[in-house]
Amino acid sequence: MYKLFYSPGSAAIAPHAALEETGAPFELVRVDMQAGGHKRPEYLALNPHGRVPTLVVDGAPVYEAAAICMLLAERHPEAGLAPRPGTRARALYLQWLVYLTNTPQERFLQWFHPDWFLDDKAVEPMLKAGAEKRIHGMFDRIEAHLVSGGPWLAGDAFSVADIYLAMLVRWSRGMARPVWDRPAVRRCADLVAARPAFQRMLEAEGIEWPY
Amino acid sequence: MYKLFYSPGSAAIAPHAALEETGAPFELVRVDMQAGGHKRPEYLALNPHGRVPTLVVDGAPVYEAAAICMLLAERHPEAGLAPRPGTRARALYLQWLVYLTNTPQERFLQWFHPDWFLDDKAVEPMLKAGAEKRIHGMFDRIEAHLVSGGPWLAGDAFSVADIYLAMLVRWSRGMARPVWDRPAVRRCADLVAARPAFQRMLEAEGIEWPY
Repeated sequence: MYKLFYSPGSAAIAPHAALEETGAPFELVRVDMQAGGHKRPEYLALNPHGRVPTLVVDGAPVYEAAAICMLLAERHPEAGLAPRPGTRARALYLQWLVYLTNTPQERFLQWFHPDWFLDDKAVEPMLKAGAEKRIHGMFDRIEAHLVSGGPWLAGDAFSVADIYLAMLVRWSRGMARPVWDRPAVRRCADLVAARPAFQRMLEAEGIEWPY
Repeated sequence: MYKLFYSPGSAAIAPHAALEETGAPFELVRVDMQAGGHKRPEYLALNPHGRVPTLVVDGAPVYEAAAICMLLAERHPEAGLAPRPGTRARALYLQWLVYLTNTPQERFLQWFHPDWFLDDKAVEPMLKAGAEKRIHGMFDRIEAHLVSGGPWLAGDAFSVADIYLAMLVRWSRGMARPVWDRPAVRRCADLVAARPAFQRMLEAEGIEWPY
């Protein structure tokens, strides 16, 4: 039995949708971030970084959304969430999932939470603008890859990397120009969003697909 | 045969040391970043993000240092670079490697290259100071984990996550207070730095361990 600590629309989206893909039973525990639930001692004991999500596996906590996705993919090979080791698709899967979490996801955090990066309120708008510009450059390169190597990030093979992409696509809904304004990115995100597992995740979190 | 595109002291350190750990033959190709080698069309064809490292595997490029480390670990199970799937150590390995690449590594990039984050030279010192402060908070939490759950990030099991940690520890050498000023972090980094594979990497790149 898994237990997922989440907050609606957060980085828990990807592990939550991945859990739905596996078909394994799991319990959802909502962390009330507005009330500071992610900074309470009982949550920090699970995740000392005070971020969501955290997945409890066999009684022990694991955090970092991309790591949880990888872990679920390897614990449930029958769910087809990652290409088989030893294939070219496997290398692409690892490459893109790592890239998504350490580059565009981080720039989205810069955009959502500029105070996580420096300590001067006056500079925050500049940091948000810098993030938005760079996110577009990143998605231009993702688009170019999907045009030549899609429809999924790992080519012909759907994986949790695509779920991760759909999560980040959704995160852009408040930007002046959302990133889904690119045909191949949009096609990949649409394919993910249409999956019954992803739909169940949206419904359980009480959130909507943005277009 | 592998081919690693690297620049001395860069994020290629971890994949380079991991390659040395595997014992597999590989060719090193130095990218002259000062001369803009990472932005030339022939390199961008391998890695459109224009960053090092890139590893060519069976003729096809893979980038993202943490992804290359994971890939080498699973391609060379006999090298013992990652805990076995299905174990608690495996979850910790994935968690910490993902955390290192998407959080402290990104804050180091903010410290080394503030221009990657926004477009105002005047604000860059503030961004560097913000990064340094946050890096210390991150390493305080890494220290707490290693004190209670070490000596390696995944507990009793050495992994490429520890090589990654040693790389980031080295990156702090220009900070007013380097991060190795923490006993358990320093012990883990020392254990990695003492490995013959890591020493061969240092020698091949022409760089030194910082203390």
